[in-house]
Amino acid sequence: MSLIIAIDIGGTHIRTAAYPPGSIKPLAHHKTRSLAQTPGVFDRLLKAIEAVWQEGKVSALGIASPGPLDPHSGIILDTPNIPEWANFPVAPKLSERFGVPVYLDNDANLAGLAEWQYGAGRGHSDMVYLTISTGVGGGVISNNHLIQGYRGMGAELGHMMIDPNGPLCGCGHPGHIESFSSGPAIARYVNERIQAGDKTTLQADPNLTPAQIADAALKGDRLAISAYARAGEYLGMAVANYLAIFDPSILIFGGGVSQAGDLLFKPFEESLRRHVFHPHYLDNLTITRAALGDDAGLLGALALARLSLAEKEKVSAGQDV
Amino acid sequence: MSLIIAIDIGGTHIRTAAYPPGSIKPLAHHKTRSLAQTPGVFDRLLKAIEAVWQEGKVSALGIASPGPLDPHSGIILDTPNIPEWANFPVAPKLSERFGVPVYLDNDANLAGLAEWQYGAGRGHSDMVYLTISTGVGGGVISNNHLIQGYRGMGAELGHMMIDPNGPLCGCGHPGHIESFSSGPAIARYVNERIQAGDKTTLQADPNLTPAQIADAALKGDRLAISAYARAGEYLGMAVANYLAIFDPSILIFGGGVSQAGDLLFKPFEESLRRHVFHPHYLDNLTITRAALGDDAGLLGALALARLSLAEKEKVSAGQDV
Repeated sequence: MSLIIAIDIGGTHIRTAAYPPGSIKPLAHHKTRSLAQTPGVFDRLLKAIEAVWQEGKVSALGIASPGPLDPHSGIILDTPNIPEWANFPVAPKLSERFGVPVYLDNDANLAGLAEWQYGAGRGHSDMVYLTISTGVGGGVISNNHLIQGYRGMGAELGHMMIDPNGPLCGCGHPGHIESFSSGPAIARYVNERIQAGDKTTLQADPNLTPAQIADAALKGDRLAISAYARAGEYLGMAVANYLAIFDPSILIFGGGVSQAGDLLFKPFEESLRRHVFHPHYLDNLTITRAALGDDAGLLGALALARLSLAEKEKVSAGQDV
Repeated sequence: MSLIIAIDIGGTHIRTAAYPPGSIKPLAHHKTRSLAQTPGVFDRLLKAIEAVWQEGKVSALGIASPGPLDPHSGIILDTPNIPEWANFPVAPKLSERFGVPVYLDNDANLAGLAEWQYGAGRGHSDMVYLTISTGVGGGVISNNHLIQGYRGMGAELGHMMIDPNGPLCGCGHPGHIESFSSGPAIARYVNERIQAGDKTTLQADPNLTPAQIADAALKGDRLAISAYARAGEYLGMAVANYLAIFDPSILIFGGGVSQAGDLLFKPFEESLRRHVFHPHYLDNLTITRAALGDDAGLLGALALARLSLAEKEKVSAGQDV
């Protein structure tokens, strides 16, 4: 049997799982705290892989990690949550250690790839996946190919600027969609409006969560409702841009903030209809929620390894890819 | 011999040319006024094709046309310059008439494809082509594929919104990059500033051209200089978005407005450096001018027909594409 081991590296946990051919049900899986802020993450990663390893049976590893990273060389450039991994060649190191090919990409791209291969995006040639949580991330399939880009830094959809006078994004630039519609952006807006004197049942609090704001909104709190409405309004502008750029047949939303449902998506859809460049983009456009939940990272790493192995076989058979 | 006939449909001229295998030098070419506003464009198109036709030797036609259009079905949806061609199935009609496959895409996509196959973009896997003239249009190669999208309406880069409070675009929406950096946008800004009382050697004139403004700028006219600086500033913001989205290794500028040189590109490059999401996108990024000039449409139609025929052969040989 030819297993693939998928690895999902997060700020709090490292997950590993061994998948048999043709299946998305793992034979074995393992979860360990990544303790990302303390040294020794790589050793903990090795142990997590060994926990699901089957000697002589593994054909490749796939890894989903926060970026920025270079999927072509397998190097993590500087992932904010794991300080010791600046310019860290994680894929070459694992390949040397385990003697199999290792494929790496960022978690948002791979969550998108997973939705396309195994989830809500199956059968679509052109797909935009957007995850809205602490940040806004994207994964794009165009003409049945994952957009990675020359340096592997493509599809950073959260860092598309939509307003030069907008709030500062976590990355330091103004007016990215992430600075309007991510969880922290929604909470920041609520805190600013409280400071400005708006009436609300919420208390000013730097640790306010999107879930708390959604709860208040569902109880009728006007500020909370308007905070989601604003996030949805800007999200509609951003998605109008993605439609003009990628012209997908499906749009898939993942991430915690998109759990807010109609609070976010009603204003979003109104804004999208108002801002879309041409109404034809909305014809037969499916707008839906991600299907794979917490397993999207693991399954994306699995899909990446499977697709990369298949491509490698085609090349070695002398065919064009 | 197996010829391809390429067709470039413009608002003023229809051009046709017959290309032998492996060459971008036509055996025969023809140019006729399209008289697009008067009936009978299709008949004039037929005559222009017949002028370069060689019986029994033609394997396909390729057509570059203004959009919006559907390259998958070969239908022109509503091209503003040719009123009688609303929902016009130009490719199926020509295929029926001439008995060969006919491939269609919009002029900006095909100018990009031409630059990638035969011009400044050769050898690049990830390319963004931007034409700046009456409008702003795009053609994108990602991972060696032309981005067309599900409905064939992808890569409409000129209609990416970058400022919700920006000027109205020709399409009716606010703040698209076309509304800041196209030729008419630059002229409109100059006219508005003259109305507002700015000092300049230029006269308020609805027919002011980008070339006249560039001339004045080169003679030191401050308003003219600032008009190009503004267009370049916004262009830098837009291109920062394209880099985060596509991560190309080359950026190619075509179109009349990009003839302005440093007037536009110095402010553009400063703005791009300031707005780019991560400096890594600029590593080994080539920024250059289009190489093919007026032949880009014809050569893009040629490239489309050649690539489509090659893909068709692969499919009929039972290979994956």
